[in-house]
Amino acid sequence: GFCFSGIQAGIKKNGTLDLGLILADEVVSAAGVFTQNRVRAAPVAIAEQRIRKGKIRAILVNSGNANCLTGKDGERAAKESTRLLAQAIGSSAEFVVPASTGVIGVPLPLEAITAKISDLLCAASPKGVFDFARAILTTDRWPKVAFTTFPAGGMEGTLLGIAKGAGMIHPELGTMLAFALTDVGIPPSLLRPILKEAVEGSFNGISVDGDTSTNDAVFVLASGKKCNLGRNRFLLRNFAQALKEVFQALAGSIVRDGEGAEHLVTIEVKGSRSDADAKKAACAIATSLLVKTALHGCEANWVRILAAAGRSGARFDPMQVSVRIGGVTVFQEGTPVGAHAEAQAAEIMKSHEYTIEVSLGRGRGHARYLTCDLGPQYVAINASYRT
Amino acid sequence: GFCFSGIQAGIKKNGTLDLGLILADEVVSAAGVFTQNRVRAAPVAIAEQRIRKGKIRAILVNSGNANCLTGKDGERAAKESTRLLAQAIGSSAEFVVPASTGVIGVPLPLEAITAKISDLLCAASPKGVFDFARAILTTDRWPKVAFTTFPAGGMEGTLLGIAKGAGMIHPELGTMLAFALTDVGIPPSLLRPILKEAVEGSFNGISVDGDTSTNDAVFVLASGKKCNLGRNRFLLRNFAQALKEVFQALAGSIVRDGEGAEHLVTIEVKGSRSDADAKKAACAIATSLLVKTALHGCEANWVRILAAAGRSGARFDPMQVSVRIGGVTVFQEGTPVGAHAEAQAAEIMKSHEYTIEVSLGRGRGHARYLTCDLGPQYVAINASYRT
Repeated sequence: GFCFSGIQAGIKKNGTLDLGLILADEVVSAAGVFTQNRVRAAPVAIAEQRIRKGKIRAILVNSGNANCLTGKDGERAAKESTRLLAQAIGSSAEFVVPASTGVIGVPLPLEAITAKISDLLCAASPKGVFDFARAILTTDRWPKVAFTTFPAGGMEGTLLGIAKGAGMIHPELGTMLAFALTDVGIPPSLLRPILKEAVEGSFNGISVDGDTSTNDAVFVLASGKKCNLGRNRFLLRNFAQALKEVFQALAGSIVRDGEGAEHLVTIEVKGSRSDADAKKAACAIATSLLVKTALHGCEANWVRILAAAGRSGARFDPMQVSVRIGGVTVFQEGTPVGAHAEAQAAEIMKSHEYTIEVSLGRGRGHARYLTCDLGPQYVAINASYRT
Repeated sequence: GFCFSGIQAGIKKNGTLDLGLILADEVVSAAGVFTQNRVRAAPVAIAEQRIRKGKIRAILVNSGNANCLTGKDGERAAKESTRLLAQAIGSSAEFVVPASTGVIGVPLPLEAITAKISDLLCAASPKGVFDFARAILTTDRWPKVAFTTFPAGGMEGTLLGIAKGAGMIHPELGTMLAFALTDVGIPPSLLRPILKEAVEGSFNGISVDGDTSTNDAVFVLASGKKCNLGRNRFLLRNFAQALKEVFQALAGSIVRDGEGAEHLVTIEVKGSRSDADAKKAACAIATSLLVKTALHGCEANWVRILAAAGRSGARFDPMQVSVRIGGVTVFQEGTPVGAHAEAQAAEIMKSHEYTIEVSLGRGRGHARYLTCDLGPQYVAINASYRT
């Protein structure tokens, strides 16, 4: 029940795709979550307000310009572009939400967008998923698409997710930008809590650089083309599980594509007094510059892992802590295992993906965070982002 | 009333000074503050316990090894080395505090230290300040010493401060390591609150990389050689002011010498509802990777400054915010000033020291944070610290 397109409108200077559209056949059930950053882009504020009613026909996305801190003109540009799109599809602007990503503080080139709206509509097709996925990228190295099916009462529901990264990634309630589309029907009032839970278990547990974007937004649209889940708890649970899996796949892809990153590392903290304590420790480890540079250097530096956990506010006694890197125990209940184990772990750290497990030895609390290494390329990208 | 020495004991592999001593002529009034990290080095725990009584004769410091996460052996090594020093100076071990800085998780080479204790004592002299200051360095580029005098009731009190950086710097109640020595007398019960206040206004407002050390410790020793301030409020205020100034000078030197850093940047946030709000915003800006890489690239990237403030939890409306970089207004009450102002600001950002002012336009709250840029050199140092 959805068409997609991605075209070139000249917003990005490098001549790649930069204008995307998701178009539902008719108005569909929808929900969204948005950045908690106090500095929010114009399209975020507009999208949040419009999606509150739970009904959406189209999403208009541009990359290359975040339309953030652009004042009244930015608000007008977001409203005007969605108004023209709504007009062209015979809908109301209330059912069209804008989303933008890219450089902050530069006026959105409204005319470049409005001049291309008919091209964008002409290009829209169910097969346009990857054009759309490419049109929303900024410093990303690859498009991020995930797909799954789930049992929907004798039928097979389908769920498609599309996202982008790759810097300013430390989401609080949403990451810039993710879209999930399903052909089953779910009323907006049920869609919202399912979305929040899926985001909590995916995008809210990742970090590239500890900086929260001004444009974070996650949308889910349910067309009901195939069937309607109604209020069937069992079917809704299937959908919630599928949504979480798709978001986790996209979240992994975002971190793997973290600016300048070469390793995707899962931080698993367990044995804390509470899940909240485990999340504090996992987040501190995942965002520590000293940990992330050690990941880049493939150093089994468990001391930085413990030092980060130590400042996180999580309660534990270092003498009860164990650390495993890629399955190799390097620190066992307060005592270093030794150089041989560290050399083994360092070897595993050369791989693209591995897990670091920290057991605090205090209880049943548990949390997981996805992070990546931080290398000179991250600095190079961000020391001259605009010039 | 103090002697100093710094010698080579072979703890550091590069053959530089690595063992230092501060020796008071007799037991003096003393106070200390220590890291709030839950992972704490053995010498930190011992020093904190011993300094509680407010009386100290000597401080034994080594660099090259932090004696942290070294288990029972680490505790024994710290106790044994201070016991031998105490014996040699005819004092009790209770009046000798240890401090260590360097690699974490590697056993402290106790014999290298004990073999050099008589050399260390022979070298001790009032002129040994810079030897001591050099002996406590790790990745620092220069020794950090500050000196001031203050009126002490008809006499001139003197105050000497010595510190080291240069990574794992985001102190919580102390930074690794700082020492302040004065020739006036102040009882320990009055020295403690003065120390805490001075640390709050200096070391607790700096960040190199957002990581809190396991070995942070700040000591102040008051010999009373010249005069005794007793409980004279006016004189104590003079001393407190001098201590804060010396700590601020040392804090500035630590950040200026941040690993791989080229710029010392003061983040001034004002116009917030409370000082606490201002500190939240200033800390988020000072620790943001995106801000710090922009500082490195000399980019007047006010959007990253605002985005960091936005996620800090401080309350403000972006439309009331102004940003000045090195005195040049680049963002005025919600509106970008333009490319010309940004070019001017970028020019100023090439200098070694400048200030970024963020006015939130909400009230009288105020806070200041010292930070530095983050360049590829930081990553290079920390991706292969141990290898």
